[in-house]
Amino acid sequence: MSGDFLALALPGVQQLSPYVPGKPVDELARELGINPDTIVKLASNENPLGPSPKALAAIGDALAELTRYPDGNGFALKTLLAEQCGVELDQVTLGNGSNDILELVARAYLGPGLNAVFSEHAFAVYPIVTQAVGAQARVVPAKAWGHDLPAMLAAIDESTRVVFIANPNNPTGTWFDANALNEFLQDVPQRVLVVLDEAYIEYADGGDLPDGLEFLSAYPNLLVSRTFSKAYGLAALRVGYSLSAAGVADVLNRVRQPFNVNSLALAAACAALRDVEYLAQSRRLNQAGMQQLQDGFQALGLSWIASKGNFIALDVGQDAAPVYHGLLQEGVIVRPVANYGMPNHLRITVGLPAENTRLLEALTRVLARG
Amino acid sequence: MSGDFLALALPGVQQLSPYVPGKPVDELARELGINPDTIVKLASNENPLGPSPKALAAIGDALAELTRYPDGNGFALKTLLAEQCGVELDQVTLGNGSNDILELVARAYLGPGLNAVFSEHAFAVYPIVTQAVGAQARVVPAKAWGHDLPAMLAAIDESTRVVFIANPNNPTGTWFDANALNEFLQDVPQRVLVVLDEAYIEYADGGDLPDGLEFLSAYPNLLVSRTFSKAYGLAALRVGYSLSAAGVADVLNRVRQPFNVNSLALAAACAALRDVEYLAQSRRLNQAGMQQLQDGFQALGLSWIASKGNFIALDVGQDAAPVYHGLLQEGVIVRPVANYGMPNHLRITVGLPAENTRLLEALTRVLARG
Repeated sequence: MSGDFLALALPGVQQLSPYVPGKPVDELARELGINPDTIVKLASNENPLGPSPKALAAIGDALAELTRYPDGNGFALKTLLAEQCGVELDQVTLGNGSNDILELVARAYLGPGLNAVFSEHAFAVYPIVTQAVGAQARVVPAKAWGHDLPAMLAAIDESTRVVFIANPNNPTGTWFDANALNEFLQDVPQRVLVVLDEAYIEYADGGDLPDGLEFLSAYPNLLVSRTFSKAYGLAALRVGYSLSAAGVADVLNRVRQPFNVNSLALAAACAALRDVEYLAQSRRLNQAGMQQLQDGFQALGLSWIASKGNFIALDVGQDAAPVYHGLLQEGVIVRPVANYGMPNHLRITVGLPAENTRLLEALTRVLARG
Repeated sequence: MSGDFLALALPGVQQLSPYVPGKPVDELARELGINPDTIVKLASNENPLGPSPKALAAIGDALAELTRYPDGNGFALKTLLAEQCGVELDQVTLGNGSNDILELVARAYLGPGLNAVFSEHAFAVYPIVTQAVGAQARVVPAKAWGHDLPAMLAAIDESTRVVFIANPNNPTGTWFDANALNEFLQDVPQRVLVVLDEAYIEYADGGDLPDGLEFLSAYPNLLVSRTFSKAYGLAALRVGYSLSAAGVADVLNRVRQPFNVNSLALAAACAALRDVEYLAQSRRLNQAGMQQLQDGFQALGLSWIASKGNFIALDVGQDAAPVYHGLLQEGVIVRPVANYGMPNHLRITVGLPAENTRLLEALTRVLARG
């Protein structure tokens, strides 16, 4: 073999299909020949509120040190997270987005001959990180679009090292309650790391969803993963974190790149954590927008999956691909989820009131055209 | 086995010792109880010039989109790099610093039963990324502190998939010329990826060092890795890149995280590439500072390793640890390199003229104390 660098790559890597992100606004603007400002993007579960002024100020303050490496230990942010979350500093791991956390777990604990269990219709990054390290994915059929936790438990075998669960789940928005989580954690073997992905937890206030942190002390094999990309409005900067037993955090910190989180992200995340009003406003906006979208879908006679996130999976009652493309022609970007085994659904991010109106009007026209 | 998550980690991961970064200024300020502004840090090969105004302006422009995900394809930056480097767009891979590039190579091409060849006294990240994926490191003794390329060639065996070489090398500052590189590339088997780490190449102008890019078309198994963290002054933001055959870039792009480079880094790197004057000024400053340091070392009767980087490995003629600690007491941070097999050396970054003076004066006092 000489110089075929696809064939020379590890077997898992050869089979990788990269993550497909939401269509960029600029790309659609180029294709349609229109002003990017007229395009509404409800495709990536981004916070429509715009940046927190406090985060912007913190970035401004950090700019003087642009030529310096970040604090590789993320001391200030980890201290603040430990305080807010009621854990010790050595239980915190920082990631370049929570994507990085998920990948660190796979690289530390998975490999050929081992497997990870996760649900059908779960986040696309679980299969990617599993396959990239040559481990096997055990995908458990969903139940009413959500996780079937007892079935996931039954899917765990001797070679299982990781279970990925998400609450609420993306792209379905489904969730499970504290009892279901507790029963699951009680029965998962101690040698299996349970990754509880709470990327959208800040939107899910209300009594139905458990706070994963409350289970950390009872279950040393639990890792809770969170992000600043959603309710905290810092997707551009890439910063996520996990809370786990110190022993797990120690392993993940060995595997992570020494400067995996950039300086401006560290500064902005500290400010965002302190900006209580921004978070509250993000939640209110999401709640109102979710209602607006549901009212609109109902008026159109459409059904959807009840969601605790900042997005909603809409059933368009037919192959969703033409509807997706029709919406693009209207300057509205949403997310097709056929690659999640949901060919009749579109995942729509809750936007600003005017954006939601644009989406609903465009959707009405597209569906009327047939 | 139940719940020992160090024992459950992959064998390579269990043995990992994390990268040791330069001592942070804030940490030393806390320890000494002094103002951080009075501390001189010449420990991490950072650009002492401060940020490029054009990079700062580009960051300011990008802040409005802070809640949006980065362009996962890095289209604008890759287009600019392809133009400047005279390659096609599909030959460029972006990394979260060039550390990310080195890691992507290891994760794509190395694993248990395979090995990577690199030199003694080479960058600490080569052994880390090799070990993290369970591959074997074949470390080749250095020759006059630099790479012994013929010996490295001889160390390649059937299980070698990657050779890491650096020009100039960190932490020694040593280099090889175009003939040596060409002869090496001619003899390396086509199935072995040669990673030519040019993190410091922008400082190494002059006729002695080859431009790795000129060898790309002749050697499809060559990958050139570069960074914006040094001469471009963007260490805080984490952005590096590689240029390689399109087939290699395709594989690395499958492995990388979809949003590995943040939006502000993408914007600032584009601006930095266009800021020709900043780069020229960084080079001039480095040249003058290198001379200043060498003059000072000579006056102290000390020897050093000739360097083409923005740093210099000083031989203090004794165990360097007490000298390092003595300098810390003087408020000057440099880098001990005993972990690089260089117990009598200190790696000193070229600073501003006043910083270099501070270092030389402090060094004089510390050595006089014995």
